[in-house]
Amino acid sequence: MKNEKAVVVFSGGQDSTTCLFWAIKNFKEVATVTFDYGQRHSAEIECARKIADELGVLFKVLDMTLINQLSANALTRDDIEVTAEEGELPSTFVPGRNLLFLSFAAVYADAIGSRHLITGVSQTDFSGYPDCRDTFIRSLNVTLNLAMDKQFIIHTPLMWLDKADVWELSDTLGALDFVQEKTLTCYNGIPSTGCGECPACQLRTDGLARYQAKKMAGANT
Amino acid sequence: MKNEKAVVVFSGGQDSTTCLFWAIKNFKEVATVTFDYGQRHSAEIECARKIADELGVLFKVLDMTLINQLSANALTRDDIEVTAEEGELPSTFVPGRNLLFLSFAAVYADAIGSRHLITGVSQTDFSGYPDCRDTFIRSLNVTLNLAMDKQFIIHTPLMWLDKADVWELSDTLGALDFVQEKTLTCYNGIPSTGCGECPACQLRTDGLARYQAKKMAGANT
Repeated sequence: MKNEKAVVVFSGGQDSTTCLFWAIKNFKEVATVTFDYGQRHSAEIECARKIADELGVLFKVLDMTLINQLSANALTRDDIEVTAEEGELPSTFVPGRNLLFLSFAAVYADAIGSRHLITGVSQTDFSGYPDCRDTFIRSLNVTLNLAMDKQFIIHTPLMWLDKADVWELSDTLGALDFVQEKTLTCYNGIPSTGCGECPACQLRTDGLARYQAKKMAGANT
Repeated sequence: MKNEKAVVVFSGGQDSTTCLFWAIKNFKEVATVTFDYGQRHSAEIECARKIADELGVLFKVLDMTLINQLSANALTRDDIEVTAEEGELPSTFVPGRNLLFLSFAAVYADAIGSRHLITGVSQTDFSGYPDCRDTFIRSLNVTLNLAMDKQFIIHTPLMWLDKADVWELSDTLGALDFVQEKTLTCYNGIPSTGCGECPACQLRTDGLARYQAKKMAGANT
């Protein structure tokens, strides 16, 4: 693997930035691909571009606004409130999003001579998204290989981690401060510290607190 | 099935038009989806639109020109000659094309309340396209269901037919004359009779001749 090229599906958020550090450590060459699907906050794309530039990796934006012709939803339309009723799919759900992103990423990877795809999906933070599950990713991997007669390998370094574990991974990669200061996860588009109130901010802050408590406890024993 | 809605992946060519007649016979409501990926001949899209209008089915064009950012090739660039060396993928190949088309078709179908997808791919006319094989389609069907937590059914009425069989099917559906006169298969963009010389025209003409010979032989026994 060390001598090969990898493509990271990249949003500029905590998870995909941690994956980007993981990829830089494990591959000779790394390219990122970011999808513009009319996000509420185009700040997200600018944030991704800055991170990619700073880490010196290839940055490619693909226009996926087509998705919005097919299914409007809370992530992409300002007039829908972000909610998460128990047992329902969150209103931020774009059906088939990871299917489309990873399929395009595979075509892109093939075009630049890469067979390694890296995505930050996690079954632990499942939140009702079927296209974050391990079974889906494995099925898609087989489908991609059959579709293009290639041997793609989808890597999911965060699949079985919770948010505290993701912070731990970024710490192990020497990237905790970078991730904390430079990534954007907040649904309200506020980088670094975030708004502190949206579900994404709460998950991030709570994960960091749990990791810091664990680290502190480890240091004290 | 009879009471359900189906989505046909539609190009205005012989195969997908035969599929469209098959769908109209087998489903209560039929919608078509056509992909604009910068085909050499935009005549293809106009031809598809005319057929859909004439048959009174919903017609939707989705912009997929994004594909060309990822891999330029003979179907979409005028400066590459259409060739087919034995043992190689033909130069008209867009890697992952059916993967992307069917994935978008599934998202579209879901948005309009349909779970039936119909595509005219055929393993018999395989021609080196991995994304026309039955194994790929079945794998994709599972992947779509996992991606969106739905029960899609991909129908491939032409999978095991050769071109003569496809003409026979259109005859059975009472659509032979329609398909012969109104569809566009020719790589040089000439509808109905075609240029007669490109590989697509040769396949079509040869298939029709073989079906007519078979029908004649049947009538004489």
